Amino acid sequence: MYVTHLECPKCKTKFNHRELNQLCTSCQAPLLVRYDLNTIKEDFKKEYLKTRCCNLWRYRELLPIEKHSNVVSLGEVMTPILKIDKVGNSIGLKNLYLKDEGFNPGGSFKSRGAAIGISRAKELGVKAFAMPTNGNAGAAWATYAAKADIKAFIVMPKDAPTITRNECQISGAKLFLVDGLISDAGKIVAKAVKKYRFMDASTLKEPYRIEGKKTMGFEIAEQFGWKVPDVILYPTGGGVGLIGIYKALLELKEIGFIEGKLPRLVAVQATNCAPIVKAFKENKKESEFWEDAQTIAFGITVPKAIGDFLVLEAIYETNGSAIAIDDKDILKYQELIAKHEGLFICPEGAATLAAADELYKNGWIKDNEKVLLLNTGSGLKYPDTVISNPPILKIDEEI
Amino acid sequence: MYVTHLECPKCKTKFNHRELNQLCTSCQAPLLVRYDLNTIKEDFKKEYLKTRCCNLWRYRELLPIEKHSNVVSLGEVMTPILKIDKVGNSIGLKNLYLKDEGFNPGGSFKSRGAAIGISRAKELGVKAFAMPTNGNAGAAWATYAAKADIKAFIVMPKDAPTITRNECQISGAKLFLVDGLISDAGKIVAKAVKKYRFMDASTLKEPYRIEGKKTMGFEIAEQFGWKVPDVILYPTGGGVGLIGIYKALLELKEIGFIEGKLPRLVAVQATNCAPIVKAFKENKKESEFWEDAQTIAFGITVPKAIGDFLVLEAIYETNGSAIAIDDKDILKYQELIAKHEGLFICPEGAATLAAADELYKNGWIKDNEKVLLLNTGSGLKYPDTVISNPPILKIDEEI
Repeated sequence: MYVTHLECPKCKTKFNHRELNQLCTSCQAPLLVRYDLNTIKEDFKKEYLKTRCCNLWRYRELLPIEKHSNVVSLGEVMTPILKIDKVGNSIGLKNLYLKDEGFNPGGSFKSRGAAIGISRAKELGVKAFAMPTNGNAGAAWATYAAKADIKAFIVMPKDAPTITRNECQISGAKLFLVDGLISDAGKIVAKAVKKYRFMDASTLKEPYRIEGKKTMGFEIAEQFGWKVPDVILYPTGGGVGLIGIYKALLELKEIGFIEGKLPRLVAVQATNCAPIVKAFKENKKESEFWEDAQTIAFGITVPKAIGDFLVLEAIYETNGSAIAIDDKDILKYQELIAKHEGLFICPEGAATLAAADELYKNGWIKDNEKVLLLNTGSGLKYPDTVISNPPILKIDEEI
Repeated sequence: MYVTHLECPKCKTKFNHRELNQLCTSCQAPLLVRYDLNTIKEDFKKEYLKTRCCNLWRYRELLPIEKHSNVVSLGEVMTPILKIDKVGNSIGLKNLYLKDEGFNPGGSFKSRGAAIGISRAKELGVKAFAMPTNGNAGAAWATYAAKADIKAFIVMPKDAPTITRNECQISGAKLFLVDGLISDAGKIVAKAVKKYRFMDASTLKEPYRIEGKKTMGFEIAEQFGWKVPDVILYPTGGGVGLIGIYKALLELKEIGFIEGKLPRLVAVQATNCAPIVKAFKENKKESEFWEDAQTIAFGITVPKAIGDFLVLEAIYETNGSAIAIDDKDILKYQELIAKHEGLFICPEGAATLAAADELYKNGWIKDNEKVLLLNTGSGLKYPDTVISNPPILKIDEEI
């Protein structure tokens, strides 16, 4: 393993990666995993990838797992990137792509964070953790925890997608609902981790989940032949996916796998929960708590992200943007892509298509630019986004 | 393309594969696609696979698509095979594996049939089709049809998984429910295809769906390093998956990719819909219509399969078996595998685990035999199989 230490991105204090660390003890910021990138540059060559399995473990030099025996896997695959020409043409974008994270275990990108987070937790001897979730992360961590024999305590809003309750329940996690938002679930978890001395697996309160999410960035670079797209649009709640992709691209640049300009990163939020967009418009470095947050894209209902400053940094550093989409448009674009491409994506993913359309129409995305949408999960997890009232025939009726 | 013709497995009559053919015009049996296997043996080498993409299109020599431009893809992946040691040890089976077809587009193995079926339909100029379905096949064909600009008319029982309605609806298919079983839906479709001259995409009434399903067999052989397992258990409704795997293994043997004994194929059904199991026990070549069919494993609620004689042939020829599982046990084993392995599989897949346990206990499966379960879909599509009543906390409560 090439990890050298954990580092606070604010005060740069170093922490030991062989101990269980959560936030920076001085400034309460998330810790980031740092690698010996110079040695990785010597040891790791692109051509090694040709003979490795098509899943996130192929990037092992840049992952924080010491022993292969600690890897906890539910069969991860390299998720496909599809050129979506039909829907692209319908909105005028000629080079439109979608990375479909619905192919992950449990149907969402959250399994990447859980795969690395749980594997490392196992390696560090963790026996139990608690976490707040908007549904999918909890489901992912609960299932990986079952495989790893780690106890999971999950707290999610009662409005989170119901199927994610089932995933927690059947895999043996202790599940609690809260009559509130993920921020309320977070407070309950904070008390529980103190009381029971659980590991706190809240977004960015442990340093390894992001290491799983960053594998999206590795895959994007490799799948595009190490020539990154011009723009990447990411549905942004807690923001770990976007931060992860940014971290991955910086690491790849450092080891010489990619060069030139990074993609402009765009955080896509929902109009009724857009703290990052507001901060970006006001040119601020951090966001403020968003009151009365509500959107059909439940996964991005995050009123205040602990890593907001990292999301904003990634946007500013790449000359990116942040944009909010109405629920009505989310549903419209979810249907548009299904009708054209046969892809049943989640509302969060649909928001990125709406955003790409808007950014192209207002000139921010130029003709012929290569644009990548991240669909963070399968539409299967959100049955309520589609209204279906087909006729019911009797057995002797005709169509 | 190496296809030579279509063939009736009963009367051996040949049909032209460049025309749209449905059943054998003389004996109404399904038609099978035949290839020039001698030439394939010359032209296709195992090592070619090393540099091909990890999806079903890697076996193109053994697939019935003429032009690459006719390929309709939603991002198929090679589905993982997982060694499931924890659940294996709990029932005494040391070499237990599961192939997880939940990783397919739409979360079920049905997308394999749709990928090839729709691609070939496009190649043959089909503009519209109708099909009866227990849900997942209709959803898969509807989504691939949207991508291919082919009109889909889908008829499913009103008790089919509701999420599959959404998949049809959002991708623009014309959807009808029927107050009955798939056999009733089939009658409605039969009238519609006559009336409107649609292609009939019912199970085995067109010859290409099975060519997609057989890619499971190719993957199994390749993923096990061309040494096939001793036993394969398959949840069996219409039976195309099992027939497909059998056809694949015979083709691989013919071109020299595998040798020796084939795996013993086991058809797993539900106690309240077990026509193949009954026929097998009575040593018959065909099954009889099963009255009052009902099971929580909705995908295998098929009272009489048109390809029953092919399923039974595959079982007899491989010294396989057929076994029925109670709904109660299906749910029990669905939970068992989730708790041990973190895998949320569909009830049909869970039936194969119950069957493996029973066949090991009664001595039919021997110690150290390599046993492969086929999980045909994701548990995400069956929310009603899990009962979850977690406590609802107020925002100031503790756990």
